[in-house]
Amino acid sequence: MKITPTETIELLRAQDDILILCHAHPDGDTLGSAYALSRALRSMGKRAAVLCEDPIPKVFAFVAADEPKADFEPQFVVAVDIATVKLMGDCVGERFGARVDLCIDHHGTNSLYAARVLLDDTAAAACEIIFRLLREMKIEITPAIADCLYLGLSTDTGCFRYSNVTSATLRAAADLIDLGADFTRINREVFETKSRAFAALERMALCSVETHFGGLYATVTVTQDMFRESGAGEDEFDRIAAIPRQIEGVLVGAAVREQKNGTYKVSVRTNPPMNAADICMRMNGGGHPAAAGCTLEGTLEESKKTLLTVVGDELRRAGKI
Amino acid sequence: MKITPTETIELLRAQDDILILCHAHPDGDTLGSAYALSRALRSMGKRAAVLCEDPIPKVFAFVAADEPKADFEPQFVVAVDIATVKLMGDCVGERFGARVDLCIDHHGTNSLYAARVLLDDTAAAACEIIFRLLREMKIEITPAIADCLYLGLSTDTGCFRYSNVTSATLRAAADLIDLGADFTRINREVFETKSRAFAALERMALCSVETHFGGLYATVTVTQDMFRESGAGEDEFDRIAAIPRQIEGVLVGAAVREQKNGTYKVSVRTNPPMNAADICMRMNGGGHPAAAGCTLEGTLEESKKTLLTVVGDELRRAGKI
Repeated sequence: MKITPTETIELLRAQDDILILCHAHPDGDTLGSAYALSRALRSMGKRAAVLCEDPIPKVFAFVAADEPKADFEPQFVVAVDIATVKLMGDCVGERFGARVDLCIDHHGTNSLYAARVLLDDTAAAACEIIFRLLREMKIEITPAIADCLYLGLSTDTGCFRYSNVTSATLRAAADLIDLGADFTRINREVFETKSRAFAALERMALCSVETHFGGLYATVTVTQDMFRESGAGEDEFDRIAAIPRQIEGVLVGAAVREQKNGTYKVSVRTNPPMNAADICMRMNGGGHPAAAGCTLEGTLEESKKTLLTVVGDELRRAGKI
Repeated sequence: MKITPTETIELLRAQDDILILCHAHPDGDTLGSAYALSRALRSMGKRAAVLCEDPIPKVFAFVAADEPKADFEPQFVVAVDIATVKLMGDCVGERFGARVDLCIDHHGTNSLYAARVLLDDTAAAACEIIFRLLREMKIEITPAIADCLYLGLSTDTGCFRYSNVTSATLRAAADLIDLGADFTRINREVFETKSRAFAALERMALCSVETHFGGLYATVTVTQDMFRESGAGEDEFDRIAAIPRQIEGVLVGAAVREQKNGTYKVSVRTNPPMNAADICMRMNGGGHPAAAGCTLEGTLEESKKTLLTVVGDELRRAGKI
């Protein structure tokens, strides 16, 4: 059932011993949302903790600084920035997927798996929704909370350059800066710093670029061998995913990443009028209009062929080829 | 003589037949400032035109759409985003360098060459100052003016990720979006699009990275041969200049570009506590604390050696080596 921000606030106020779930392969927005909410709820005298299937990438570790260990039996489960149960990861999904009391999300593709859902797909990030909630609740936004929220806003917008940005996103970021978010450090560490390993992976990825349909579709491929050879972590793949769409004239960019289990994770980014979520939903994935994802089984060649067929269909449907 | 925003407004209101100068090798901020101001002055019934030593890079061409040809003898000369006469370029500098009536700038290193100077080095971009002026003057900010101003704000801040951003910068950008700036297109074309030629140049540049002082200093070199081989334009160099500082641990990054006349243009970017303007001023250049530049004569090896010596001195002075 979808609920309003006011109903969400009433619900949160009435609960205690709250467990907050992040999606697997956590990004800045799910982590920023969860730890901001967890800190805010604790400042109200409640017990709250965060759970994620996967470890926090090093560059985002600051969000969990001083976070106490969960030492309570959860009475209320909140999912943040999680569109479907599958995205929680196997263990978290199995344990909590069917008992999420509240989901706070900005994905239009949210499957409404939770008992109650606060959904705003005009928000650039789940952190934008959480920020509005905390303000409505008159909770003091400490610098640590501001850091978490700024992280989500900035990472989900490519540091304010993607098409999901609105003037509300920029004003929220401005307010968070005034509230003490250490945005200079966050921008530098998250967006302006490349490990040597990442720089090596990027070079390899640039060499793997292939284009189709007269340059309307471009792909980049990263294999487990490339991760090994470069020394880069799989959590650094997100920045590679942006490469194909950046090439002049490209309407659909796809980044194909070999996973440890042999399947291929695909990140699709589009420019108008192409819709990344439409493309990925045809391969049992989902996401946003300009950025979505799916997982493909089979060999690399088969996966690329599937992608090529689906993207070709969609380009035809849009009258582009 | 430094003047206040109110004095600047009085001055602009009293003048007509106004020529607005950009710096040579124009960037988004000098162009956005000049064309926003030119449009605004014309909307007040004045005659105004823009002059720049070099052609406008293709990606910024929209700022000058519908701009009428200058058909008047300038009575008042305004320089925007130009810290020194030298930066105007040879022809413009010779003709107008000694007769600039008003300079509007955000470079702390401004040499105060103009009769009157409105200087605010807390502004992330000259466009931030121009926006405030136009608002104070109650001039209607049309979508075309908003595009110009947004271009300057976004390009001088790396799309809001550099350390010169303040909450005022983000609020100005939010206001410009509400006023109709086509920020999605501008972000996509300026920050999210790479020509194939640029992608080739970037690959070569990544291969030229050298590090010194245990990784505290990194350089990237782009020669005329590399421009020729990749087909990239020299105006695409700005994005290469960001590469060295992005490598983890780097405090000083320098990008060395061979110019057609055989001299070397150096762009220095720093992370705290290092100061790029201090480094470049020792080589007769200047700029901002985090981003500055200078020109070196001699061979590539000599230029790199000069840089290495100066950077080494500054790292020692900061107690880093």
